[in-house]
Amino acid sequence: MIQIAILGLGTVGTGVAKVVAENARQIERKLGEPLQVKAILVRRFKDGPYRQLMTDDFRRIEEDEDIRVVVETIGGVEAAYEYTKRALNAGKHVVTANKQLVAEKGCELLALAQRKNVSYLFEASVGGGIPVLHPLTQCMAANRIDEVYGILNGTTNYILTRMVRTGAFFSDALREAQAKGYAEADPTADVEGIDAGRKICILADLAFGRQIEPETVPMEGISKLSLRDVKIAQRAGYRIKLLGRAVRLPGGGRTAYVAPHFIPGENPIASVEDVFNAVVIRGNATGDVMFYGKGAGELPTASACVADVMECLQQSPRREEIGWSPESEGFEDPSRLETRHYFRIEGSLTDAAMAFGQVEVLSEDGETAFLTEPLSGQDAVRQSRQLNVLACMRVLD
Amino acid sequence: MIQIAILGLGTVGTGVAKVVAENARQIERKLGEPLQVKAILVRRFKDGPYRQLMTDDFRRIEEDEDIRVVVETIGGVEAAYEYTKRALNAGKHVVTANKQLVAEKGCELLALAQRKNVSYLFEASVGGGIPVLHPLTQCMAANRIDEVYGILNGTTNYILTRMVRTGAFFSDALREAQAKGYAEADPTADVEGIDAGRKICILADLAFGRQIEPETVPMEGISKLSLRDVKIAQRAGYRIKLLGRAVRLPGGGRTAYVAPHFIPGENPIASVEDVFNAVVIRGNATGDVMFYGKGAGELPTASACVADVMECLQQSPRREEIGWSPESEGFEDPSRLETRHYFRIEGSLTDAAMAFGQVEVLSEDGETAFLTEPLSGQDAVRQSRQLNVLACMRVLD
Repeated sequence: MIQIAILGLGTVGTGVAKVVAENARQIERKLGEPLQVKAILVRRFKDGPYRQLMTDDFRRIEEDEDIRVVVETIGGVEAAYEYTKRALNAGKHVVTANKQLVAEKGCELLALAQRKNVSYLFEASVGGGIPVLHPLTQCMAANRIDEVYGILNGTTNYILTRMVRTGAFFSDALREAQAKGYAEADPTADVEGIDAGRKICILADLAFGRQIEPETVPMEGISKLSLRDVKIAQRAGYRIKLLGRAVRLPGGGRTAYVAPHFIPGENPIASVEDVFNAVVIRGNATGDVMFYGKGAGELPTASACVADVMECLQQSPRREEIGWSPESEGFEDPSRLETRHYFRIEGSLTDAAMAFGQVEVLSEDGETAFLTEPLSGQDAVRQSRQLNVLACMRVLD
Repeated sequence: MIQIAILGLGTVGTGVAKVVAENARQIERKLGEPLQVKAILVRRFKDGPYRQLMTDDFRRIEEDEDIRVVVETIGGVEAAYEYTKRALNAGKHVVTANKQLVAEKGCELLALAQRKNVSYLFEASVGGGIPVLHPLTQCMAANRIDEVYGILNGTTNYILTRMVRTGAFFSDALREAQAKGYAEADPTADVEGIDAGRKICILADLAFGRQIEPETVPMEGISKLSLRDVKIAQRAGYRIKLLGRAVRLPGGGRTAYVAPHFIPGENPIASVEDVFNAVVIRGNATGDVMFYGKGAGELPTASACVADVMECLQQSPRREEIGWSPESEGFEDPSRLETRHYFRIEGSLTDAAMAFGQVEVLSEDGETAFLTEPLSGQDAVRQSRQLNVLACMRVLD
């Protein structure tokens, strides 16, 4: 009998308890012995199936030598950070889905885990139930990773899908997402690209082996996206998707950012709809590999946590190959990156051509919408200075 | 310095040598020391960059204690099987992309590896460079796997894509694939579904934990596929794809088969084109997860082998969690499975309705093409006995 503890009993915490119970047979077959939740840390006691496991005293978990793995599902940094450090210091493996904590403190916590000879695993922090981080760090370990990008936030993808399918405005699609439980009452972290930003930081940390500081990563969401641009994209055979993107730059640098992009319809990621997520990893040997599935939800995310629990136990004392350097140097602003750009301007094709030379016109009716030739973000800003720009987005080529 | 040997110097073997050389820095960073190819087993010596590493005597590899991992890229069963056993018996890890050997002898070789306390890994045997087997066995370990299906053969997918895009007949599309090097001179294993069949066996072995005997798995390829059906599918919003499919049956049984399927256009796998592969894994917690990328080719496949080499070394003595029971009982014929069926008959809608009741008509011009309601393969055969059937395929629902 192997015993674990769960910190927090929200969506993910409840899901972890459910997966451990419902898939007990599969789990036992792989581990060789049963897995059991011994304690759940809560702030307030609630009635329910897990009432007897609840405690509000972390020391009871910390000091219990039978508990070998702690699953942290509290979220945020403060308490989660403290408890994670204490659990690692007590010689317990820690598993989490907490992308904010991993993006901000992951490097430090991995180093602590290494000193304590235990694992700190967080597959569920990116892509929920979709395997992404293990494939990146293990299966693609013989590659130089040149780029990672993806639809990393299901809420915004749902909103964008509704805008395309039903012609809804952003605000209406957001309300619909909230009514369906896909968006939170305060949707800021989702719609402003912050959630996707934390995930692209973690992907970039692992892909390039050096810390990316979340506060240096430009994050643009979809709250200012106009339905007009969604429709122009659609008619021209593109889809607008919110992408997190991390790129290895020639010369050894790297960059990362979050922004809405024009995606050509034939790119498989263009057909990723509703709350689904997808991550594309470009290795110098494998080429582009895509991982696709439901990026969130109680059971998918929880099952990724439980798989990490199993891995901690099977690979005891600890998995060696993950981690990255705390040095963040070499991060460059993404404005250096060259791509085609989409513009919608108040002005004529002549205005567009004066600013950018040859362009591909997508729409002309009072306003002009067009795609430029590949140019850097800096140049896109510089060359459009004389124009009345209504919208500007990068094209994923 | 960690030393390995390669058996065979064909496409994959050469690729392994290249990846070890080209990505030496990435590999060393993860392993903590350099990786080097010490010997390559060949039947005939050839000039070239690897001339000095070549040997035609397997004993020189078997008896070299410095060689810790052997990468078998010979293919087929006979010699590959012998050398694999000898290498494992000599206490060396073995890594392979040889799907035939793994499908037929994998269970035995894994058991031998376990006795010798070494690893036998074969990520590259399914999906080439796309991570599939590790995600299935590790990241989704907390799931009960209910179904696995996929486009497992790039050659046939290329042929199908050409038939759709250019209206080429099967035979012309095959010749084009051969001219481009995507199909071999003897294309039987690809076009008759045998290659896909070996891969679905491996996926089913790992997903369900019991041996699937390849000779019990019905394998139908695309060599009899008519361009007419490809066009009817296309017009009706479907794509025809050759799928390998393995399903857990209610009551504990399981089945597997290879056959062309009608795929609804909105299923992400419908847009997998050219030589790309995709595998969908359905877990009871994660739902459907899809893995997509180039399923073959020198460098993708080789990079998956090298990642397995790295994993053998990092997880020394051995990775615990893979393997399956040699017992093959519980395998059932796929004709029990219920799906909608596509039929094209020489006859009228009345004939179709007499046989199947309500149907969805796709085309009526002398012949009648239609989709049935969900029914088992057995019933599809039985109910169509009075009809003049020109084509019949399952629909992936």
